[in-house]
Amino acid sequence: MNSSLSRFGVPETLTDLPADIRDTILAVQEKAGFVPNVFLMLAHRPDEFRAFFAYHDALMEREADTLTKAEKEMIVVATSARNRCLYCVVAHGALVRIYSKDPLLADQVAINHRTTPISERHRVMLDFALHCGLDVGELTDDWEARLAAVGFTRDDIWDIGAITAFFGLSNRLVTLTGTPPNPEFYMLGRVPRDKR
Amino acid sequence: MNSSLSRFGVPETLTDLPADIRDTILAVQEKAGFVPNVFLMLAHRPDEFRAFFAYHDALMEREADTLTKAEKEMIVVATSARNRCLYCVVAHGALVRIYSKDPLLADQVAINHRTTPISERHRVMLDFALHCGLDVGELTDDWEARLAAVGFTRDDIWDIGAITAFFGLSNRLVTLTGTPPNPEFYMLGRVPRDKR
Amino acid sequence: MNSSLSRFGVPETLTDLPADIRDTILAVQEKAGFVPNVFLMLAHRPDEFRAFFAYHDALMEREADTLTKAEKEMIVVATSARNRCLYCVVAHGALVRIYSKDPLLADQVAINHRTTPISERHRVMLDFALHCGLDVGELTDDWEARLAAVGFTRDDIWDIGAITAFFGLSNRLVTLTGTPPNPEFYMLGRVPRDKR
Amino acid sequence: MNSSLSRFGVPETLTDLPADIRDTILAVQEKAGFVPNVFLMLAHRPDEFRAFFAYHDALMEREADTLTKAEKEMIVVATSARNRCLYCVVAHGALVRIYSKDPLLADQVAINHRTTPISERHRVMLDFALHCGLDVGELTDDWEARLAAVGFTRDDIWDIGAITAFFGLSNRLVTLTGTPPNPEFYMLGRVPRDKR
Amino acid sequence: MNSSLSRFGVPETLTDLPADIRDTILAVQEKAGFVPNVFLMLAHRPDEFRAFFAYHDALMEREADTLTKAEKEMIVVATSARNRCLYCVVAHGALVRIYSKDPLLADQVAINHRTTPISERHRVMLDFALHCGLDVGELTDDWEARLAAVGFTRDDIWDIGAITAFFGLSNRLVTLTGTPPNPEFYMLGRVPRDKR
Amino acid sequence: MNSSLSRFGVPETLTDLPADIRDTILAVQEKAGFVPNVFLMLAHRPDEFRAFFAYHDALMEREADTLTKAEKEMIVVATSARNRCLYCVVAHGALVRIYSKDPLLADQVAINHRTTPISERHRVMLDFALHCGLDVGELTDDWEARLAAVGFTRDDIWDIGAITAFFGLSNRLVTLTGTPPNPEFYMLGRVPRDKR
Repeated sequence: MNSSLSRFGVPETLTDLPADIRDTILAVQEKAGFVPNVFLMLAHRPDEFRAFFAYHDALMEREADTLTKAEKEMIVVATSARNRCLYCVVAHGALVRIYSKDPLLADQVAINHRTTPISERHRVMLDFALHCGLDVGELTDDWEARLAAVGFTRDDIWDIGAITAFFGLSNRLVTLTGTPPNPEFYMLGRVPRDKR
Repeated sequence: MNSSLSRFGVPETLTDLPADIRDTILAVQEKAGFVPNVFLMLAHRPDEFRAFFAYHDALMEREADTLTKAEKEMIVVATSARNRCLYCVVAHGALVRIYSKDPLLADQVAINHRTTPISERHRVMLDFALHCGLDVGELTDDWEARLAAVGFTRDDIWDIGAITAFFGLSNRLVTLTGTPPNPEFYMLGRVPRDKR
Repeated sequence: MNSSLSRFGVPETLTDLPADIRDTILAVQEKAGFVPNVFLMLAHRPDEFRAFFAYHDALMEREADTLTKAEKEMIVVATSARNRCLYCVVAHGALVRIYSKDPLLADQVAINHRTTPISERHRVMLDFALHCGLDVGELTDDWEARLAAVGFTRDDIWDIGAITAFFGLSNRLVTLTGTPPNPEFYMLGRVPRDKR
Repeated sequence: MNSSLSRFGVPETLTDLPADIRDTILAVQEKAGFVPNVFLMLAHRPDEFRAFFAYHDALMEREADTLTKAEKEMIVVATSARNRCLYCVVAHGALVRIYSKDPLLADQVAINHRTTPISERHRVMLDFALHCGLDVGELTDDWEARLAAVGFTRDDIWDIGAITAFFGLSNRLVTLTGTPPNPEFYMLGRVPRDKR
Repeated sequence: MNSSLSRFGVPETLTDLPADIRDTILAVQEKAGFVPNVFLMLAHRPDEFRAFFAYHDALMEREADTLTKAEKEMIVVATSARNRCLYCVVAHGALVRIYSKDPLLADQVAINHRTTPISERHRVMLDFALHCGLDVGELTDDWEARLAAVGFTRDDIWDIGAITAFFGLSNRLVTLTGTPPNPEFYMLGRVPRDKR
Repeated sequence: MNSSLSRFGVPETLTDLPADIRDTILAVQEKAGFVPNVFLMLAHRPDEFRAFFAYHDALMEREADTLTKAEKEMIVVATSARNRCLYCVVAHGALVRIYSKDPLLADQVAINHRTTPISERHRVMLDFALHCGLDVGELTDDWEARLAAVGFTRDDIWDIGAITAFFGLSNRLVTLTGTPPNPEFYMLGRVPRDKR
């Protein structure tokens, strides 16, 4: 048991895990080159592991009306930073850089999206995400109009709110367990592939 | 589409829903006597519906080390009240009353668990739930000792934190969509069964 | 001395109380069927008892320009809930139900008046009450215009602000003394009279 | 009507006021040399005027177990400053100076009692007053022990809490109505009588 | 070493201080009639002393486009009061009174500039100062328009923001060291010169 | 004038700047390989430029009793992140990485130093820095004991507090002017020198 990855312990080997969970972990390792710590942390509770990643995929792998993969990850970074969750800021910051191909965007969004030169669409999107995440805010007519004015459909709005809500759950689990981000995440996407 | 139950609409009939979702809804209707609105709200997104209730059941129907069903629902009510989520306070307040057989406990926990004559175990449990839910707080040695002193195991602590995190997600979805509690919930458990 | 009703003790019998205070208590008992605990708590200080109820009656029994009895009690419940005062939420929640004949309104207003389907008049009224109660807010031209637009006169505005201020005092006294609501209050007004 | 003293107007002359209110106003004018504006503001509502000053006198003119007149006024100034109520800070700051014979104490307490060289008794007293006033806090065993350790009886504690609660009401009324302090208050007690 | 003027001690005599610092202190004593304690506190660190007063003079002795000396001091008092720094409120409150020739203005601005009858120019100026000081706020187009509408140039806006920032530094140093205001400051400017 | 580096404009060329300021800028360019934008922003006000960097150097280049260069920069990053100042987090994050030779430390400290595996010395140091920076807190006996227990001298404590205060000023200036960090800062120190 490696308690440095979770106060509740993580499996010493993958051998004793349920087969589907082991397969999921091996698949992500194959794809990323390492096992993100949150997979090991959640393996402590197989049913919750399954539900967590089913929910994650339902939101993050769903093809949205207009919300892009980069925008989804910007929402995760901005709200996780306000929840002061290092794991999600670092892991999803890597995805912001990869999807947006902008090596600076993740840090800008994490520290202060209001003073960063992003588009009006992105500013309103992140304002609304923080409204949902920090204020447990409702969708008023006023918000709906502001979001529509920058091109979001009603289903995009559901996505923004639901992603914020889901990662609020994730932030709380990761902070509860004390799970750190893998060191590999910190550098991902900072240097163009051809320069490395 | 009945927009009064969700800004994103709910299905007009159950006919067009995926079979498993329809079955889930019919089963809860059979058991409760009515369909809790959150089932209809989430039916807008079948994959998220499935993940949400899988997660819910993994936490709430799991047999905990020492955490009782009534205690789980007290956690939901106390944290949802601080997130100002009427649906969860009213629906899970009914469950607090039913499981605890105490018709006053839900209102007490919703408004102020600190000034309510509950046990030290319950006070520490709810203090920790608010630490996780409002402050996105970590599990320190100090918290672990305080929780152990009132009888909670480490897996109980995971449950307290995870239930808080999951209902923080639920609070945000319900507030986003504007879903109200069914009127039936308000009275459940307030009057002893034999008196009704 | 029954210290469970106040950390400062309450009279064991009414016999030794000043006659006017005893009469007031007997009158409320006659009317309500029980003695609300706040009367016993305040009997510890007869002069303050007299001033408190004189002030209470000056505000709550005064015929306002347009503010109704139900509206006055909604103000008490919404602001007391934000001050996390169980006594006032439960006792005046009963009065909200009785005066409004709506068994759900008190819980809705206590948890979140913003996400509840109340009238615009009630929404502005409670927004202003929270402005006075939580922010110690001033009456600006802007507020006066917003309140006038939903039908409130200037004297109604005084009433809204003064009721909020008075129950802020009450919330603090009740929380200081640890006085719980009488169990009878919880059910009042939840079931139509003819059904009981 | 002089609207600069209250948004709700004040009486143009004392002639039309109820006799008891006129007498009260004339008496304070006789004693202070001017009519404090809060008397004129409250004259708009005679019943509330009577209850307000009855409550005020019950607390402030009551002989406490050990709480002195200067201490009572320090409580008013410290809590009113946090509520940002200019009237109460200035008017009761004058009384702090007069009763304590310390021309600097009121300003010190208004701005920051924590960084001011006051006694431990005064520091705990003001900490508790802010606990009651800002946090609507309860009297726990811990607070009672801390207060007893610096010499306060249980009835002193009631006084501290009740004075805080009453002036929280006063702060809200004065802010609602926009009533300014009389210019005379600002200088009172700043210069020793024999030097003027 | 007089530790009552700073937790870090102040020089017992001026003799051992660097000549330029001694000269600065003697000059201010000559002008004010006493040595403001902040000069003695900062003498603990000569290089920081020099930089602090160089910065102070660059902002406060610079001739602004339209910002007056009284307005500069109002900014200091309003922001220092919110930082609860007694030294700066009292010392610069004296300067507000002297420059504005209004003996009441400093107390009004310290407690609540929103409920005080100041000009719209002063209200917007102080709103913006608090935006910079408390919220670490940015200068948006909206703020620039509001400030321009009451006569401030762009360089005035820099001055408002920079003065707020500089005194935020000062507030933190003075609070860290526990340096009290000199008693002389409290009365300065309260009585017209010819009346003293 | 390049307004993207400051809302108040920056010099188009260095030619017209005062010689000492031009020399300072050329020296930093020589050393860093680029001109950090804050130098250009402050060049708008030569006297403030001089005082700012004199103060900066007095604190940051001073040899402290035990406080290291890496620790000083950790203080800057932790407090600037809470003030949501992107410039200071990114520029001084680079210095944290360079001085500590730890490529991950800056991001950890920026997002949440409480959940990061740093030493007890660093945790107490950053707790105190946030006490000074966010709460404008005083140095109590309790804080002094906690800081001494992890090896800080009294002069180290002055340094921690003064660095926090100075960068609070810097955060406010940079946010006011909208000055972004130079892109070069983001990558500095992330890759070992011999690997680049």
